[in-house]
Amino acid sequence: MNTTQSTPSTAQIKEAELSIHDVIARRESAHAFSPRAVAPATLRSILEAARWAPSSYNVQPWAFVVATKDQPAEHEAVASTLMDLNRRWAAHAPVLIVTVARTTFPHNGAPNRHAWHDVGLATANLLTQATALGLVAGPMGGFDPLAAREKLGIPEGWEPVTVIALGYPAEREAEATAAARKPRERDPLEHFVFAGRWGHTAHFAAAPRASEAGPLDGFRSVGIATIQN
Amino acid sequence: MNTTQSTPSTAQIKEAELSIHDVIARRESAHAFSPRAVAPATLRSILEAARWAPSSYNVQPWAFVVATKDQPAEHEAVASTLMDLNRRWAAHAPVLIVTVARTTFPHNGAPNRHAWHDVGLATANLLTQATALGLVAGPMGGFDPLAAREKLGIPEGWEPVTVIALGYPAEREAEATAAARKPRERDPLEHFVFAGRWGHTAHFAAAPRASEAGPLDGFRSVGIATIQN
Repeated sequence: MNTTQSTPSTAQIKEAELSIHDVIARRESAHAFSPRAVAPATLRSILEAARWAPSSYNVQPWAFVVATKDQPAEHEAVASTLMDLNRRWAAHAPVLIVTVARTTFPHNGAPNRHAWHDVGLATANLLTQATALGLVAGPMGGFDPLAAREKLGIPEGWEPVTVIALGYPAEREAEATAAARKPRERDPLEHFVFAGRWGHTAHFAAAPRASEAGPLDGFRSVGIATIQN
Repeated sequence: MNTTQSTPSTAQIKEAELSIHDVIARRESAHAFSPRAVAPATLRSILEAARWAPSSYNVQPWAFVVATKDQPAEHEAVASTLMDLNRRWAAHAPVLIVTVARTTFPHNGAPNRHAWHDVGLATANLLTQATALGLVAGPMGGFDPLAAREKLGIPEGWEPVTVIALGYPAEREAEATAAARKPRERDPLEHFVFAGRWGHTAHFAAAPRASEAGPLDGFRSVGIATIQN
């Protein structure tokens, strides 16, 4: 989250999709948006993808408050909850979505320890669908959840989780040179994938030797400079 | 989670992909697996997808303990943490993955309120990639996290979140008739998507009238009986 964005070239997508699906490889958090509005059918498709996420006991402990630029007061209400650093760029997004978690089970009021996790599952589907439709989306944890609760009328039992800035990428971003972009960085797999027991390196997770490097390794070492968080 | 599984027919996929991407539409929680092992390169690809999820401050607060059937003691250790109802089917999965959240920030020890959410983002990418590669995966919340911590040596500061059963679908499941399967069910969009403020129905989320029903509505009302959670 919270990083610059870009549109990867077709060549990079091709390299990546052999190892991971292009809707995952192409996803990136966005910092600059085209003023182009997001059509209702597109918004619906993106939220429909969230809807089909799995959840613990299928209670679907999520809600989404969507504010579009053509509702300036509502859009500003969401933007005003953002940390300054996020607000500076995210206020220009044509769509802001507040994701909300229902933290107790509806049938008995017991705490649902998977509520935030399941909002994460739904949010990742939303991001994947947005990517598939050519949009960019940046989820942000940096906002004031109490202000969001008050301004949007979010009831007790529900907690604001993130604000997602959504829209089409700005053209100047799409045209920016690779050198001007911040590389996406992740820990290597062998740091966080274990075999059977904590701390035991999984043989399939260790970095392949040069001779057995897969397509994504090329993607990571060569194409990486143009793919963003 | 925790429901039966199936492989949707090509026709259903076609209907769905017009409205939501087929890697999301086809995803389903699995209850029956082929004995076919999952190749190391396939496992690596699935975990690589998780790796590229976004996270708050990009701290990547996740880890995955992977137990394959060819390590019977480790596989059994994970299976033994499952609730009986889950263990009955999931013990047959060729791969069990325990997802783990780092609940504090590494640099200052402060609580990371997005840790579980971000494990959800990474897990959804994992499920999407598994689907893209023809596998099925069922994330389960029903397991004993204390037993998992002890048996797998998960350190303080990290919390077990789910156990994912992963493998290829059993052939008899793939061949089962639609009538024998449990339908996937989700609340309608207008129940949990709001415009600008909590409780305000989003016009794009309201169910389309018959004349403007999109392809997914056909998918939902016709194909739904053969798609699973």
